[in-house]
Amino acid sequence: MDEQARKKELAAKAAVDYVIENEYLGVGTGTTVSFFIAALQQSGKKVKACVSSSDATTRQLLAFGFPVVELNEIQGRIPVYVDGCDEIDANFNMIKGGGAALTGEKIVAQASDKFVCIADDTKLVKQLGAFALPLEVLPKAVEQIKKSMEGIRGVPKVRECITDYGNNIIDVSGLQIQDPLKLEEAINQLPGLVTCGIFAKRGADVLIVGSSDGIKITTKKNKFSFKK
Amino acid sequence: MDEQARKKELAAKAAVDYVIENEYLGVGTGTTVSFFIAALQQSGKKVKACVSSSDATTRQLLAFGFPVVELNEIQGRIPVYVDGCDEIDANFNMIKGGGAALTGEKIVAQASDKFVCIADDTKLVKQLGAFALPLEVLPKAVEQIKKSMEGIRGVPKVRECITDYGNNIIDVSGLQIQDPLKLEEAINQLPGLVTCGIFAKRGADVLIVGSSDGIKITTKKNKFSFKK
Repeated sequence: MDEQARKKELAAKAAVDYVIENEYLGVGTGTTVSFFIAALQQSGKKVKACVSSSDATTRQLLAFGFPVVELNEIQGRIPVYVDGCDEIDANFNMIKGGGAALTGEKIVAQASDKFVCIADDTKLVKQLGAFALPLEVLPKAVEQIKKSMEGIRGVPKVRECITDYGNNIIDVSGLQIQDPLKLEEAINQLPGLVTCGIFAKRGADVLIVGSSDGIKITTKKNKFSFKK
Repeated sequence: MDEQARKKELAAKAAVDYVIENEYLGVGTGTTVSFFIAALQQSGKKVKACVSSSDATTRQLLAFGFPVVELNEIQGRIPVYVDGCDEIDANFNMIKGGGAALTGEKIVAQASDKFVCIADDTKLVKQLGAFALPLEVLPKAVEQIKKSMEGIRGVPKVRECITDYGNNIIDVSGLQIQDPLKLEEAINQLPGLVTCGIFAKRGADVLIVGSSDGIKITTKKNKFSFKK
């Protein structure tokens, strides 16, 4: 295992402590999450069921013997959601979507009370934007949204993939994201935009970082709108 | 033809004057638009091609002999977009989506410089919201978005239909929409929301109303964000 993978695994293992037994658990997508799923199984902790953020994660969860339910099937909220990120800043704003699962991730994260972000220390940034911002967009709107991104000095590139929802991903490089919340809110207004890869409106609540020195855990309280 | 249909046809026929020959034309969806397509053909006016807002409109346009191109294929903007609405207020804010085509409509309208709204006089309202607000949402997010709507005292009901994009429509009744732009912007933040049926950020520029007394045309200038 290389050094970065080892750091991811460290963070992933520490997240198991946040899992509440006999409750629903929201599960993100990506390599760090794969370590988490394996660690959770090894821990022997039992959850009521997992709410998955992607087809890939659902397959992994089922392979590890975890029950999986649809978000629409559950009453109330999910107490804990565990996921990785592509970048995270000091205010726990993130860029996500490198694995093209940003839409399912955002929906499940929004339905969860506590977002536990697991990351290796290469993901920590002063300012978001060095990692190209992923946008999930309807195929019909691809060229229009590319133009909008060029209008704010972004460099949009359509990724060679189709999402779980049959849409395209546009990766926007060249953005210096000074106000992540404001940019997320503005991009959310674009017709044909399905999901913006900025997670600021619903950022992380707990950050577990794995580094060569071990793990570091920090927490933050977040506000929500539209919460009953 | 009943009285309401006659009013729709009056407005639709008047919109033909706004069509610019040898340019692209954006075409909405619905019964009033059907009258417009027929009137445009009868006028003999030739457009470069039509940009359609829905599968249903594409079929009608092709049946009437109009060339249809994908939005992604064209350079630049569309000079004129013609569409109906379910409600429109004095500031040219609209509710649209009764025909489940709101997503394609919003994408094409956003790409157009002038939105010509054609309506019979029953669509004019002091305040939006008597017509249940349609929201296009990803199936995965249906229950979450229903809860969000209940949180603002709306009464959400899932419509028995699947959109052109494979999504669900939630009709939200009981809303008294005092600030359409603010509500549209807030709803646009919900994860899993594809399109909000409020058209305030991109409202109409010209309104042609058909009534028992004939037609009445009024105009309004709109501002845009994200326009290059």
